[in-house]
Amino acid sequence: MRTAFAKRMGRVRASDIRELLKLTVNRDVISLAGGLPAPELFPVSELADLTSKILDEHGAAALQYSPSEGHEPLRAQIAARMNARWKTSYASDQILVTTGSQQGLDLIGKLFLDEGDEILCESPTYVGAISAWNVFQPRWVEVPTDDDGMNASELERLLDARRQVKFIYVVPNFQNPSGRTWSLERRRLLMEAATRRGVHVIEDNPYGEVRFEGADLPSLRTMDPEGLVITLGTFSKIFCPGLRIGWVAADAPVLAKLVLLKQGADLHTPTLNQMQVSASINGGGFEERIARIADVYRERRDAMMSALEREMPAGVRFTRPAGGLFLWVNLPPEVNARALLARCMDAGVAFVPGEGFFPNGGHVNTLRLNFSNMPPARIEEGIRRMAAALRLLTSESATPARSAENTLAAVSAREGSRS
Amino acid sequence: MRTAFAKRMGRVRASDIRELLKLTVNRDVISLAGGLPAPELFPVSELADLTSKILDEHGAAALQYSPSEGHEPLRAQIAARMNARWKTSYASDQILVTTGSQQGLDLIGKLFLDEGDEILCESPTYVGAISAWNVFQPRWVEVPTDDDGMNASELERLLDARRQVKFIYVVPNFQNPSGRTWSLERRRLLMEAATRRGVHVIEDNPYGEVRFEGADLPSLRTMDPEGLVITLGTFSKIFCPGLRIGWVAADAPVLAKLVLLKQGADLHTPTLNQMQVSASINGGGFEERIARIADVYRERRDAMMSALEREMPAGVRFTRPAGGLFLWVNLPPEVNARALLARCMDAGVAFVPGEGFFPNGGHVNTLRLNFSNMPPARIEEGIRRMAAALRLLTSESATPARSAENTLAAVSAREGSRS
Repeated sequence: MRTAFAKRMGRVRASDIRELLKLTVNRDVISLAGGLPAPELFPVSELADLTSKILDEHGAAALQYSPSEGHEPLRAQIAARMNARWKTSYASDQILVTTGSQQGLDLIGKLFLDEGDEILCESPTYVGAISAWNVFQPRWVEVPTDDDGMNASELERLLDARRQVKFIYVVPNFQNPSGRTWSLERRRLLMEAATRRGVHVIEDNPYGEVRFEGADLPSLRTMDPEGLVITLGTFSKIFCPGLRIGWVAADAPVLAKLVLLKQGADLHTPTLNQMQVSASINGGGFEERIARIADVYRERRDAMMSALEREMPAGVRFTRPAGGLFLWVNLPPEVNARALLARCMDAGVAFVPGEGFFPNGGHVNTLRLNFSNMPPARIEEGIRRMAAALRLLTSESATPARSAENTLAAVSAREGSRS
Repeated sequence: MRTAFAKRMGRVRASDIRELLKLTVNRDVISLAGGLPAPELFPVSELADLTSKILDEHGAAALQYSPSEGHEPLRAQIAARMNARWKTSYASDQILVTTGSQQGLDLIGKLFLDEGDEILCESPTYVGAISAWNVFQPRWVEVPTDDDGMNASELERLLDARRQVKFIYVVPNFQNPSGRTWSLERRRLLMEAATRRGVHVIEDNPYGEVRFEGADLPSLRTMDPEGLVITLGTFSKIFCPGLRIGWVAADAPVLAKLVLLKQGADLHTPTLNQMQVSASINGGGFEERIARIADVYRERRDAMMSALEREMPAGVRFTRPAGGLFLWVNLPPEVNARALLARCMDAGVAFVPGEGFFPNGGHVNTLRLNFSNMPPARIEEGIRRMAAALRLLTSESATPARSAENTLAAVSAREGSRS
């Protein structure tokens, strides 16, 4: 049998970490690993009511094929909501509804990336973007990034040094994985650098509406005289992820091409699901639910921050996100987060090692924590267990990293994980 | 502004025909053009009830992220249904749930196709496969095809002559666009040729369960000792298309790679939608609905066949499908189907010219008719109008083709269609 896969598959690999973390589902593990929203805030009974109403009034349309661009009323609502909150001026025909914003990443990769093209990204960056775009065989150029965003002079230097930059990818608000938010100044400097050179900017904003404190910072699109910014959004974090409704907003020439690619990729996003989101936005209570989500996640972030401050040994640094679902931890340089994870799994707590968020690897002493999916008491207990495992790991004298790696390998092998 | 799209976008073009056919939506046009199932057979009230039940019992899970492979119970049901009807022996972990079977095509293209790789296909072939795969810049090799399937000796010859064949793509049952069904003998010859050379076969079977008469013919997968066949299926034609639930079935090494690509493409297919289909299969009445669909479409096919036989002038040939949604018309060689479409649009009836179903172009005197979406009386009236338009077109002496093309161009321009 010939298994002549395409060359691009050399870049597509299963993550052993992801396989390992699947174990958390069927065990009593405190998972600070995934990116799951809190299900107790999902609009369960509301969706039952409005689905009945949609099917009663528009059943045939809701279950039929529909335009690749998306359900017209929803496109208009998405544009209106973005413009209201982010002061953009998107028209509804600049919106493409996608099957989750992950699909937006895939379509953008397809549209722009030839083999060897360069993507400038934050360091670390969103792992879903890495997996969406690696199939198009790009080169990843990580721009040094601090708590305020990309280092602007490094960004300028890299833009001048690199010849095949197709776009700059950023998550300006409560970034996944770092929890960081770009300052106003850095946003301006980014857009000046991009505008001067006519480089597209992908502004991925899945978390921006889940803000705990402080005022919104302007969308990059409001600093974009040339229409270079392509904005990605999603209802996964502010409504629910299981319906898979996201969107791309872009100027007409880009959007028209994305629509054609969307047609080839899955024809269109499920009709009923689009009508469900649309009806819920119309139905009232939609914005109030987002405020409730922010309240709950703020409390969980606070629980995690206090526990980290209380429990973690010296030499452990962490970010303080003003919104979103994640924060970022730097372990002491000599500690490997994969080794720590192996210990933590045994102790009944899980997180995601940071290495996978760096497209060019390294940074093995970093990790990401999620605080949206566990109640405060479990978060506190989880951090206590993590801190204890960390103390034990660092106090061991004899080759602690190797033995911990062996534990990880053993767990993976036991569960038939792919490498 | 730099609009440096990827090279692959040179193969991605909007269809002027598709743009033209959008006009049928808002006008009193008898559309024999689309591929829409009959909405009056959609499970509207059933879906309302079972959605309430799902949300009541499993609301949090139904609205949460879920595995890329698909909802486990649905994977098992898909395998069981295929095995029962098609005598295959797929296991549930050989099933990947996709966002419509269109996504299956996209993922297969991503998995196999490097630029210049060859796809052997029927002539004509499914236009959605052409649009899914052209982005991967393949070469299309059309195998001469008659009413029984591909010409077997031509297939052998092409397999030997071509060096970069990645797979053979076929729709063996009630093909879109031709309505043809492969004979048992041709299925055997195809699988012998593929097996001898270790070439993958993509068996796309969206219509197989909608059979009007006669017995099922075996799935290619039952003649596949090497596990080369990858089967695509969908609930769009037997349940409803608006939920976008399809699947790919394949041996483990291929399926594992498709799962990784699926993860990068849209993470997973909407959870609630998978649970809806799963609940409906469990709930009873699922198979009875398919029989009802076949009954209704058989009546519509009969209406279309009688009208074609009664109305069409000599020199017009058409297929007689034993199932599915489409039949295929060969006009006299001197008639251009695009010219006829322009006249028909004015007469209030639409179809799809055949040229777009040939990846290498040509065959301008062919067209596809859909009979699933209009009641018999409308179908008969539509064929009457088509036949009248055809007679007028062929009877005109002075440069009839050119003037008709001008009409088409004028309509396109008026509606701002892309070329």
